[in-house]
Amino acid sequence: MQELIKVAVDAMGGDHAPQEIVKGAVEAVNSQSRVKVFLVGQKAAVQAELQKYQYDSSRIEIVDAPEVIGMAEPPVQAIRTKKNSSIVVAMKMVKNGEADAFVGAGSTGAVLVGGQLIVGRIKGVERPPLAPLMPTEKGVSLLIDCGANVDARPSHLVQFAKMGSIYMEHVMGVKNPRVAIVNIGAEEEKGNALVKETFPLLKACSELNFTGSIEARDIPSGCADVIVCEAFAGNIILKLYEGVGATLISMVKKGMMSSLRSKIGALLVKPALKETLRRFDTSQYGGAPLLGLKGLVVKTHGSSKAVEVRNSILQCVTFTEQQINEKIRAGIGGKENQEGNGSHGI
Amino acid sequence: MQELIKVAVDAMGGDHAPQEIVKGAVEAVNSQSRVKVFLVGQKAAVQAELQKYQYDSSRIEIVDAPEVIGMAEPPVQAIRTKKNSSIVVAMKMVKNGEADAFVGAGSTGAVLVGGQLIVGRIKGVERPPLAPLMPTEKGVSLLIDCGANVDARPSHLVQFAKMGSIYMEHVMGVKNPRVAIVNIGAEEEKGNALVKETFPLLKACSELNFTGSIEARDIPSGCADVIVCEAFAGNIILKLYEGVGATLISMVKKGMMSSLRSKIGALLVKPALKETLRRFDTSQYGGAPLLGLKGLVVKTHGSSKAVEVRNSILQCVTFTEQQINEKIRAGIGGKENQEGNGSHGI
Repeated sequence: MQELIKVAVDAMGGDHAPQEIVKGAVEAVNSQSRVKVFLVGQKAAVQAELQKYQYDSSRIEIVDAPEVIGMAEPPVQAIRTKKNSSIVVAMKMVKNGEADAFVGAGSTGAVLVGGQLIVGRIKGVERPPLAPLMPTEKGVSLLIDCGANVDARPSHLVQFAKMGSIYMEHVMGVKNPRVAIVNIGAEEEKGNALVKETFPLLKACSELNFTGSIEARDIPSGCADVIVCEAFAGNIILKLYEGVGATLISMVKKGMMSSLRSKIGALLVKPALKETLRRFDTSQYGGAPLLGLKGLVVKTHGSSKAVEVRNSILQCVTFTEQQINEKIRAGIGGKENQEGNGSHGI
Repeated sequence: MQELIKVAVDAMGGDHAPQEIVKGAVEAVNSQSRVKVFLVGQKAAVQAELQKYQYDSSRIEIVDAPEVIGMAEPPVQAIRTKKNSSIVVAMKMVKNGEADAFVGAGSTGAVLVGGQLIVGRIKGVERPPLAPLMPTEKGVSLLIDCGANVDARPSHLVQFAKMGSIYMEHVMGVKNPRVAIVNIGAEEEKGNALVKETFPLLKACSELNFTGSIEARDIPSGCADVIVCEAFAGNIILKLYEGVGATLISMVKKGMMSSLRSKIGALLVKPALKETLRRFDTSQYGGAPLLGLKGLVVKTHGSSKAVEVRNSILQCVTFTEQQINEKIRAGIGGKENQEGNGSHGI
């Protein structure tokens, strides 16, 4: 029998915790026999949800964590002081090897800080980037970095490109992924100081399929698999993507409800439109991995429902099976068994 | 009789020049009696288009400019060497006071460089920002800066905020415009180094209605009138806005054509949807002004059709009537008749 892949899930994080988190965990366990989930959170609340479902009880375990980190708490302080919070307890399980991966829908800041301070970086990785998958016309692209560490240096961006390329090839199955850097024009001489310095470094990486600059306009059409940028730009891209999408879809819906004629039309186009727009829905792709850590940390949307939680857990199986972290260690140049100390005084 | 407002239009710039440019100029002159247009370009080609229309011949004049600056030419070199190009000739008319404003759909780089090198900055203005109007759910917001000068300093962003606020108040008629800075979170302590330094400076400007940070997600809903950012971020926002919009609309259209049922529905919803999406169409708002120059320079989309050219010309009337440049001079702190030399050796 193959060893189980163990995922520590923050049962208390996100807008729909613990209900949807528990439901997603049950769905993951029921759909994939290789996964075991630790539901980390307030025992009574998690237990009350869990007893609603049928599942293989050897593969879901509750780990009590009485404290909860709120969305608005300053992340560093919360991680340092709330030792019994679901995020800290779950991440320590990853650090100690009791779990292979962490999945959480709570405070992004706390997940990013916890990932760096508790789980710790792989030796050689300068910064762990947050890398969500963005839906495009043709499939998905990995946007790397959308995290909290802004003002990156060129060497960070080169590492992002390498880690993103490994992820897209081995987790998403994209052969020879096309890597592009976000820029304000297609020409090599364009860009801000950071992009101008990074461009030749990426060009010189023989292990990357670097295709040059990508303008923001071309991101939705899916013409690159790995889209490299520093976190401030990445955050703008990610959030504007969601914002424009939501606004346009709401305007289309309102437009369709504006007359009797259009209401009848709306009934007829609805099934086809739903299928089209489902492809632009991020929830089916699971959460965003925080790459370059000694275990896998996945951040899912705060608004995650069970389907996204389930997909985030299943994503951990592929990540672990494909030994992504071993590949990152090899690609970034750090050696195994020489990892840096990730605890930083925690 | 009031004095005419004179607009020098690059008749050779853009994908549909000179046909749509000439048509837009005629439409502008026919709809607004206070405007006079100089069509600057290759005389024979412009003449051939112009003779198709009826118009007050005292208010459209052709100015011969035999050279054309191509979209791919390096802007600085093109502006310096092609003295008889339509952009250089038209901008010199603004510099010499023969025209109040310039409108062009050609190379953005050449228009930006020409604006700075030929028309010249208002004294005290450190950088002239390019400020397009973005459609939102509620109306339009001014995105400032989307130009070519990246890596801005905090003092530049403060000037952008002031100029943008003046523009929205006096050209667009927005009382006490809400000014926000693009950031990756709502809290004051968030952001990259530039935003963190700029935030308190904006807060201290008593003449601004500064409302704090705006996340990219909230831009499409229209919760700020003036959206301040440096050009790299602005360029990403502008182009992603167009890209996501175009991709989603194309996906909606494809979805509607996917079955007989949805095709019939599409016929019924089409008029309502068209009206809804028209509000997300930038062409009705005219072009983007390059603010802080001694005359008005307006850059319209390269793909501009007559309607956008007409609206860009009409925008110049409001700008001139409202004495925006006098207000910018007063607001930025430079004194009249003490303007800097804008020629920079041209």
